[in-house]
Amino acid sequence: MNDRVKVAVVGGTGYTGVELLRLLSVHPGVDIAVVTSREQAGRPVSGLYESLRGHCDLEFSEPDTDLLARCDIVFFATPNGIAMRQVPALIEDGARVIDLAADFRLRDAEIWSHWYGEPHLAAEYLTEAVYGLPEFNRAAVTGARLVANPGCYPTAVQLGLMPLLEAGVIDERSIIADCKSGVSGAGRKAAVPFLFAEMGASFKAYGVSGHRHLPEIQQGLSDIAGRSVDLTFIPHLVPMIRGIHATIYVDLTDPEADLQSIFETRYRDEAFVDVLPPGSHPETRSVAGSNLCRLAVHRLPAGNKAVVLSVIDNLVKGAAGQAVQNMNLLLGFPEDLGLEQVALSP
Amino acid sequence: MNDRVKVAVVGGTGYTGVELLRLLSVHPGVDIAVVTSREQAGRPVSGLYESLRGHCDLEFSEPDTDLLARCDIVFFATPNGIAMRQVPALIEDGARVIDLAADFRLRDAEIWSHWYGEPHLAAEYLTEAVYGLPEFNRAAVTGARLVANPGCYPTAVQLGLMPLLEAGVIDERSIIADCKSGVSGAGRKAAVPFLFAEMGASFKAYGVSGHRHLPEIQQGLSDIAGRSVDLTFIPHLVPMIRGIHATIYVDLTDPEADLQSIFETRYRDEAFVDVLPPGSHPETRSVAGSNLCRLAVHRLPAGNKAVVLSVIDNLVKGAAGQAVQNMNLLLGFPEDLGLEQVALSP
Amino acid sequence: MNDRVKVAVVGGTGYTGVELLRLLSVHPGVDIAVVTSREQAGRPVSGLYESLRGHCDLEFSEPDTDLLARCDIVFFATPNGIAMRQVPALIEDGARVIDLAADFRLRDAEIWSHWYGEPHLAAEYLTEAVYGLPEFNRAAVTGARLVANPGCYPTAVQLGLMPLLEAGVIDERSIIADCKSGVSGAGRKAAVPFLFAEMGASFKAYGVSGHRHLPEIQQGLSDIAGRSVDLTFIPHLVPMIRGIHATIYVDLTDPEADLQSIFETRYRDEAFVDVLPPGSHPETRSVAGSNLCRLAVHRLPAGNKAVVLSVIDNLVKGAAGQAVQNMNLLLGFPEDLGLEQVALSP
Amino acid sequence: MNDRVKVAVVGGTGYTGVELLRLLSVHPGVDIAVVTSREQAGRPVSGLYESLRGHCDLEFSEPDTDLLARCDIVFFATPNGIAMRQVPALIEDGARVIDLAADFRLRDAEIWSHWYGEPHLAAEYLTEAVYGLPEFNRAAVTGARLVANPGCYPTAVQLGLMPLLEAGVIDERSIIADCKSGVSGAGRKAAVPFLFAEMGASFKAYGVSGHRHLPEIQQGLSDIAGRSVDLTFIPHLVPMIRGIHATIYVDLTDPEADLQSIFETRYRDEAFVDVLPPGSHPETRSVAGSNLCRLAVHRLPAGNKAVVLSVIDNLVKGAAGQAVQNMNLLLGFPEDLGLEQVALSP
Repeated sequence: MNDRVKVAVVGGTGYTGVELLRLLSVHPGVDIAVVTSREQAGRPVSGLYESLRGHCDLEFSEPDTDLLARCDIVFFATPNGIAMRQVPALIEDGARVIDLAADFRLRDAEIWSHWYGEPHLAAEYLTEAVYGLPEFNRAAVTGARLVANPGCYPTAVQLGLMPLLEAGVIDERSIIADCKSGVSGAGRKAAVPFLFAEMGASFKAYGVSGHRHLPEIQQGLSDIAGRSVDLTFIPHLVPMIRGIHATIYVDLTDPEADLQSIFETRYRDEAFVDVLPPGSHPETRSVAGSNLCRLAVHRLPAGNKAVVLSVIDNLVKGAAGQAVQNMNLLLGFPEDLGLEQVALSP
Repeated sequence: MNDRVKVAVVGGTGYTGVELLRLLSVHPGVDIAVVTSREQAGRPVSGLYESLRGHCDLEFSEPDTDLLARCDIVFFATPNGIAMRQVPALIEDGARVIDLAADFRLRDAEIWSHWYGEPHLAAEYLTEAVYGLPEFNRAAVTGARLVANPGCYPTAVQLGLMPLLEAGVIDERSIIADCKSGVSGAGRKAAVPFLFAEMGASFKAYGVSGHRHLPEIQQGLSDIAGRSVDLTFIPHLVPMIRGIHATIYVDLTDPEADLQSIFETRYRDEAFVDVLPPGSHPETRSVAGSNLCRLAVHRLPAGNKAVVLSVIDNLVKGAAGQAVQNMNLLLGFPEDLGLEQVALSP
Repeated sequence: MNDRVKVAVVGGTGYTGVELLRLLSVHPGVDIAVVTSREQAGRPVSGLYESLRGHCDLEFSEPDTDLLARCDIVFFATPNGIAMRQVPALIEDGARVIDLAADFRLRDAEIWSHWYGEPHLAAEYLTEAVYGLPEFNRAAVTGARLVANPGCYPTAVQLGLMPLLEAGVIDERSIIADCKSGVSGAGRKAAVPFLFAEMGASFKAYGVSGHRHLPEIQQGLSDIAGRSVDLTFIPHLVPMIRGIHATIYVDLTDPEADLQSIFETRYRDEAFVDVLPPGSHPETRSVAGSNLCRLAVHRLPAGNKAVVLSVIDNLVKGAAGQAVQNMNLLLGFPEDLGLEQVALSP
Repeated sequence: MNDRVKVAVVGGTGYTGVELLRLLSVHPGVDIAVVTSREQAGRPVSGLYESLRGHCDLEFSEPDTDLLARCDIVFFATPNGIAMRQVPALIEDGARVIDLAADFRLRDAEIWSHWYGEPHLAAEYLTEAVYGLPEFNRAAVTGARLVANPGCYPTAVQLGLMPLLEAGVIDERSIIADCKSGVSGAGRKAAVPFLFAEMGASFKAYGVSGHRHLPEIQQGLSDIAGRSVDLTFIPHLVPMIRGIHATIYVDLTDPEADLQSIFETRYRDEAFVDVLPPGSHPETRSVAGSNLCRLAVHRLPAGNKAVVLSVIDNLVKGAAGQAVQNMNLLLGFPEDLGLEQVALSP
């Protein structure tokens, strides 16, 4: 145990925090040294989440920069707006940080401020932060001091479009991403709309007038394409706990393009992206609890349209699993270390 | 419309309130004149619950005793402890009240105070209040000024045991009621344990050390039996929205008793109790949205035990539907007026 | 009871059949005289569906043309391909038929044959049959002998697009309908993919390469627009029992169009279409068990796109409820007779 | 990889088979050499279950005794009645067998025949077979040739009662086990009652007149107690996929017994049994995907009754996980090897 890497989780009481603890507590390369929560300080971590009994013997502690800085990796699983207040000091002290919130995902402080409703307090780190989508940004992540872990919708949509944008076979003004998410994406906060009795047998869209993940997806797709890309993005709430399904519509500019081959070639060496055979319809349960993104691409019978179906577990590849994947890169571990679990299905 | 009876709903924002509005808004004998809510005053009722658009054109209003007293029937669908503060004045003004909360269900003010954590402020009405289980108490309800509408678990358990207690064929010290409820029983309040992500794919017991419905069931069963009856009662939370299933174990004292016949005879003339054929297992969905209680009684293969299976919709026969049934009795309407809906199944 | 209209249900064991029985058994204008099922002949209808106990005292009977023809209205709630074999004789005998299956929805026998895999055996009735979407076709339904009751997806999509097509403010080549359905749409047949353990906690698309409702939607939209309309249509399976949510993307041709006003004006006099206020996101639960379609229209922040959100209960407005609405038109009843139920929510 | 133990799975298409493959495919000590299925022979295993893509590269093969006998361990995840036909030959050939079905769980061939509806064809193995509940039978399992893996309900109930029976503090004639199971316990077979649309929003009891797990529980409890024990056992179906919750009622014979201490002492060294603190209510989700049984014991406020709450994942500790635990014992591996996963929660 002595030569394991010490890691800390700041804000371990939300769903991404608990999911991080699930993955890190059985990860063979690290020890969880600190889990902080102002609200729960002094309480055993496993007292909050029964599932962690026997796997995590720590108590929640008050956030303490000195203590955190003694860890090699500090994860922020806090609400938006917390990390930007605490990360600069930690980095100055030599820690490497993976932020699962949105604080460092956008490079433009003004856009960030517009969507998150307050000035950015660590804007000087926005350009240094590396957007932690390893399938696009692996080399940059490896040497980073600060990794901005992508959002759940942005992960599903970018992985679904990356091969097509890189191959230059779609009209970039035509993209529509109709996305569906399980309710754990809303987090572990007491709010009437997310009660079982409110949404347990119902389906609806939300955020049609604008969702915070839109600018993140726009920036990510533009980085991938090498020029400005816009899209229509509408999220929906599904009566299930885990899972995101993105249905992505595009107009093709190359009627001859072999879409299946473009996808298979692009992701041949990726451990966490699985391109399904032609004609497939991926199910969200096939990735529940796993760090995989499963993809299918369909050319539509009539016209020049294609559809990409992309599924992830929003708490794993869309949050905690991708954070561990980024940690493995930072630490020089095999990228899939501790992430080999098979999805829980049925 | 002019000769319809005017009714009021105090506290129309919770699930029992909304369910009352669902039933009353299509009831052919009444008009809803007032729906109160301090919190939502001024907002259209249908703005809170989309399902009521086109069915209820009222706005929530501040509670106003004069206005309420002008209604013939005032329903209280408030949290426990509100009705006891407002009911006396209304009754003095001539209104008849049906309280869907627990304020007037127990006759003993001390027991009430023990379970509900404050002194009872209208104890002088506890003996006047009629316990509104029409299948047991029909005559008394008819002439009441104040009806205490039964709780959901108590309704399912009492209807399941009434024939056996009245027939005197069971050992009254042997009763175990293992009860399971959908989550709407917890009400429409923001609380982490009732989030979809917390209980949408899980099952658990709760309140093993004591539940407020226990003294109500004890009092009700004792009234039915004509002597003191105790029981073991453990509630469980089921990942569904509506429905209660009570599995009731009893020791038989009469090995020859024809249980099926005892049940069928007892409930022959009851519109809202359906005794299933021998060997049946009632499903909660078979009563979803309806005011029915469906029952099956089984003599167990070995020994002298019997099991009663009792299902209701906790929001209908366990709350709003039974309240409308009581209202029909108060007003001299046919008991099933406005309560003829078939359960929504599938 | 004697002057009520006699109706028959052919194929009463599937979900649309059971739903018809739920609605017809409390309809004040009709008596159910016959419910047929070869497989269940002789069994009480309420033996199959516990929810119908006390509401429907009939037994299933063998289909018998003479018996059926003595009814004023004959509903077919059979699998596709049955009605076309039996309807001609019934119509010759003077019955009026409402077919809830797909047999008479397409006017072109060749297209029908392509999608349904066998020759059409009553092609001469395809042009006579009236497509029973009352909001578009009310006058024609009123005098029909044969009504083809629309499919569930086609109802949600057509009602969502009708105002825009009639107003001529959208590019008809731009339509994408991303649709989501609860599992009752798959019917009551034993099939592994629809087991709770298979799809109870998962979300997926299906039928991307082509779905039978596509030609029906194409024909319907073309009728509405007065010229040929095509669209992209992808259905998805949601882990819930009832409900369809259509998310419909269109390119606007008139940047000045007041979309909200176009919708409100179009549906002002429709009892079963509810246009929500600007900015709304309809929930499927708000129509569960009711015959309503609730709609919201959004102009997207950037560009010339609009999105329509359209929800129905697939078994009611998408099947049995719309069939009763059509029956009311055929019989000269008020169009909403027996269809006043408030949605079951929560 | 070369020194890993070779294992085979006979009947790998049901839920217990798939769950075995989930666990075995990441188990560090074994290689899956063969997965048989007559029906699916020739098809990639991951073609049936998308979740296994990338984790299991085998194809299903026809059962072949020679091939199977070359494996060190052969798991039977077949329907009841198959293993008894094939196991004798395999054991003669030197394989060790773990049967997840019921064929070798009862020692009395007549009782087996009564409950399973056919004569037992390998009755001579019934006494040799070791009942694979390691917490009771560890030593015997270690040297066995044939392990009868316990049923799901029997595992939850026996672990819940073992400390009390061994301590001799309960009246053995008083036991009532009110059990609730998720639907995956019904297996992966096309059957109407297990459709999402049938049981996705409903709760019911089943098998009140008798369930095959009753004689298994009776035998197991009697073995534990050292004398004949009977019980009342009623199973219920919960609208969730995984999980069993047993609520077990007993009469205490020793009013002074320290129940909490009896449980904690009994299970102190058990890796897979977790005794919760006093006053707890275990949730099934806290063991979803894990091999744990979590227990709470409550002395009821009045009288001499106690209640034990026992939860397991029916597919893991109630089937495939316990089978792997037994395999670890047979092979001399650490008992928890490959079973360290944390439950998936939320």
